Formats: sequence, structure tokens, C-alpha cells
Amino acid sequence: MRFALAVDLGGTKVEAALVSEDAVVLARSRRRAPTGPDSTHASLSAALSTVIGGALGELPSGSGLTGIGIGSAGPLDLDAGTVSPLNLPGCADFPLRRTVSAARPELPVHLALDGLCITLAEHWVGAAVGRRSVLGMVVSTGIGGGIVMDGRPLLGGTGNAGHIGQVTVPGYLPEGVGGLPATSERLASGPNIVGWARELGWQGRTGEELAAAYAGADPLAVAAVRRSASAVGAVIASASALLDLDVVVIGGGFVAVSPDYLALVREARDQAAPFPFVARAEIVPSGLGGDGPLLGAAALVLRSA
Amino acid sequence: MRFALAVDLGGTKVEAALVSEDAVVLARSRRRAPTGPDSTHASLSAALSTVIGGALGELPSGSGLTGIGIGSAGPLDLDAGTVSPLNLPGCADFPLRRTVSAARPELPVHLALDGLCITLAEHWVGAAVGRRSVLGMVVSTGIGGGIVMDGRPLLGGTGNAGHIGQVTVPGYLPEGVGGLPATSERLASGPNIVGWARELGWQGRTGEELAAAYAGADPLAVAAVRRSASAVGAVIASASALLDLDVVVIGGGFVAVSPDYLALVREARDQAAPFPFVARAEIVPSGLGGDGPLLGAAALVLRSA
Repeated sequence: MRFALAVDLGGTKVEAALVSEDAVVLARSRRRAPTGPDSTHASLSAALSTVIGGALGELPSGSGLTGIGIGSAGPLDLDAGTVSPLNLPGCADFPLRRTVSAARPELPVHLALDGLCITLAEHWVGAAVGRRSVLGMVVSTGIGGGIVMDGRPLLGGTGNAGHIGQVTVPGYLPEGVGGLPATSERLASGPNIVGWARELGWQGRTGEELAAAYAGADPLAVAAVRRSASAVGAVIASASALLDLDVVVIGGGFVAVSPDYLALVREARDQAAPFPFVARAEIVPSGLGGDGPLLGAAALVLRSA
Repeated sequence: MRFALAVDLGGTKVEAALVSEDAVVLARSRRRAPTGPDSTHASLSAALSTVIGGALGELPSGSGLTGIGIGSAGPLDLDAGTVSPLNLPGCADFPLRRTVSAARPELPVHLALDGLCITLAEHWVGAAVGRRSVLGMVVSTGIGGGIVMDGRPLLGGTGNAGHIGQVTVPGYLPEGVGGLPATSERLASGPNIVGWARELGWQGRTGEELAAAYAGADPLAVAAVRRSASAVGAVIASASALLDLDVVVIGGGFVAVSPDYLALVREARDQAAPFPFVARAEIVPSGLGGDGPLLGAAALVLRSA
């Protein structure tokens, strides 16, 4: 059996694990270290070294490594192999590809946005297997995404394609969004929608509390959940006009805010669609558990054309 | 020398011509017939037969045909080979690929949206040669577009990717757009912006008159041109967030409405961009003359991977 070393760098943690060719994360190889706003180049290098060394130490005897796949929070610069995660301000221009490659310099290394990795994982073994035109979305603290077309990752010029959270939403004047462009992330992400509800007088603080209030038909909670779903549906319409999507796979913790969240998203997308083809994409929940980011990083290596 | 037969179907005309491998439209082979809202399946078939027969009759002796490329107004259904141009309501589900193929059944036939063809032409011999991540736009009666990534046409699931005119623009409430979604086409196309200025009391009727009024610093004309450029810039920001664009090539008659139109578009894009990578695409005028659609249709055949 051959494996990929998969690495996932995010704003709160960095993970590494071995992933087999048949898309199984080798559980005992999984290693995790915290990251955060205080992370520096030095502390991140040390954390990577620890999790990568630990994961590689679990390679079964007789097994080989095909390569290394890295998913990272962005933006990134694919030519330079550097990342500048927004939630790791002390790690701007971090040489992630070179740092990870040092563990096994002889292996090929592929780097991509975490949103793209998750989408590749959905296309490999999740909710988008066999689909031609796929948008993956994560609705959580922020809103991220990735695009897979004809089985290939869509990278864009510098590797930053898929930032669906930065696509803007119609129907809001700037004063309704703090004077800023009405991006889907500003309108729909968990913390942003909780903040909006609180400004209107809602007393809760978390997405979980919002879910409970929605279940209890609290009017502000209902309005907040609808505002989020409406914005997500609107950007799906825009993305569908540009990409002629077959399927949109939505993951991330905020989706659990209500049982009908995806139904509300579909309704909003349908209302925003000027042509039938813009409304034809299926909108489905993620088919993966928490292994999506690592599976997708491995897919960069194990499924490269 | 080898040639492609290129066919371009639009709302007012259908054209055919021979295009050489070195991207020259053989002038004497060019044939044109009118189309319009009264076109039927029968009249369109006859028009196609006439222009294709005329073009093929000019094939230089000793030359061969590589294949047939067709660009068409959309939407289309790539699997079925049919098109349903919005401006040809009597031609819904027209079997364009089969009809054209009948002229030379032995040749390969490729069909794509006209906006994609124009973008392929810009990537072949226009303003986007050698670029990795390209959006082509046409700002005219409507707003169309196409996407070329890593030298490949981006088709989407059914061939309808690139509809940038149906991407929505932030900052407008529905009541400011006739109760409809604020798409870039509704806000920025020539007839729509002329209509908006007239509602505010402007007395002109055409894009040319709007250009003259803008040159004379008429306040309503200035506001109208800025409204159009602002909407185009906003959707370029959204498309850049999704596609990490290197270059946006803008053609179409409305661009001539003012010498600073593209500068206004760039300014609006910069204001709407939340990340540096979203504002990095060059925004440039078309590098092609009126041959773009035919060159791009030919590119489907002559440059297919």
C-alpha cells in the first residue's frame, strides 16, 4: 500500500497524517498542534516539524510514500510556495512548501488552498463523486470554497481561486454592511450573523445558541438564519452563472444551525437565478466527516492527472 | 495550409468563414445572413446552409479542412448539441451541431458559447496570449463572457460557463433594478444604461448619443457611464475572487462610450476588492477586431488540446 503525507494548516491548528491510496486516513498517524494569532514563522516551523515527524513515524513497514499534499488557509502564492493565512498575521509569506518539503526532500510536494482540498475530497469520496462542475463551500467562522472542473482542481493564476466568501451579494446597500462590500462572508458566516442578530437585540452569543433560538422560533434568530441562507444562495447563483455548476457541496459547522438551512439556501438561489441553467446545481451537504481537509490534501498527490 | 470552418450564430446574424491555422480569416470566404426574433428552425437552417456552403466553396485548392468550430449565443446544451439563443425565441432547442455537421459529416465539430469563443480568440492572438487565468467580457447590447484557464476553455457542466452578465452586483436594492436581481447586464449593458438615464430625464436614445453627452460633461450621461463601469468593476471583483484572474479582456461596442471607461472599471474593481489578489487582474481592451467570434470558433478546432 502506498500513502501520501497530508498536511492541513488552519487558523487554530495544523494537522498531519498519512492517507492511503484508497482514501483512508491512517488514524494512528494523525498529529495535531495548535496555531493562532500569536504564531510566528519559528513557532509554525516547529509545529510543522512535530506533526510531520510524528505522522511519518507511523508509516507501516513495507509501505511507500507517493508524495506530500498540503492544504492551507489563504491567501497563498503558488509560484513562491508561500502562504499568508488571514488568521495567522505573524505568518505572512510563510514558506510552507519549502518547510514541509524539508521532511522528505525527494518527494513531490503539492500545495493548495484548504477550500480546494475539501472540494477535491468531496469529488474523490464525498458528495461530488463523478460530477463535472463542482463548487465546495465551507460555512463556518468564515466562508471558504474551492472549484473542481472536469476532475481537475481549478487553481487560478496564483492558486487563490475558490474564494466564494469574497463574492458579493446583491440587495444590500453599503450602510447595511458596515460600509463594506456585501460579501457572502460578511453577511452569512457564523460570527457575522450572530453579530448582526445581537445588534438587533438578540441576547445569545454562539452559533449553538442561535440554533436553539431558531428551533424555538425566536423571530430574530429566524431572521438571522434566513439572512445567512439568502446570502449563500445568492452567491451560489452568481457562481453558477460563471461556472455552470452541477453540484454545490456545503460543509462547515454553521450548516447545522437549522435542519432547513440548505432548503433555505436552495430557495434563495432559485429566486436569484435569471436562467434555468443557473438554478440547476444540486445543493447538498458534505459527504465527509472531519477528514475532508486531510483527504483533500492527499488527493493533490494521489489523484494528480 | 489547413483551415477550420468557423460559424458564429448571434441574435442579428449568422456568419461563416474559413480560418487558417495561423489565425487569419480568409476574407473572401466570409458569408453572412440575417437572424432575428422572427427566425424559425427552418429559416435558420436555410441561413446556415447558405453561409456554410458559400464559405466552403472558397477553400483554396490543395488545402484541407481540420474541422468545424461553432460559436453561438446561449444558453446551449453541450451534450445535446442544441442552442436556445435568448434573442431568437423561435429557435429554442435548435440542433445547431447536427445541422452544421451535415455540411461535412466526416469532420469533427466543436460547439461553444460565443463569449467563450471570443475569449479563446483573445488567448490565441489577442490581448490574453500566454495568460493563465483569463476572463473575456463583451459589454454591448447584453453582457457576455467566457473563461480560459491554463489554456483550456472552461465549459461548466452543460457548456454555459462564463455568463458574467448574470453575476449580481452589490450595493443596489431590488427596487433600484425594477424589482429584479441586480445583474451586471441589467445595470451596465448599453440599452439598460440608456434606459436608466432616460428615466432620469436624459433625452438621448443611443449609446453613441450617450458618448457624445459624456464628452460634453452632461451630468446624467456622466452618472450613467459611471453606473455601468461601477457594475462591471464589481462583477470583475467577484469573478476574480472565484477565479483568481490574471487578465480581464473587455470588448463590445459600449466600451467606446468614453475614453476612460476601462479606467472607471478598474477603479470600481479596486474599491470592491477585499484582498490584494482580487484586485490584481489587468483589465485591458480587446486585442481583436470584428474577427474575434470567428477566430474563436476556429480555435475550438485548431487549438484543441
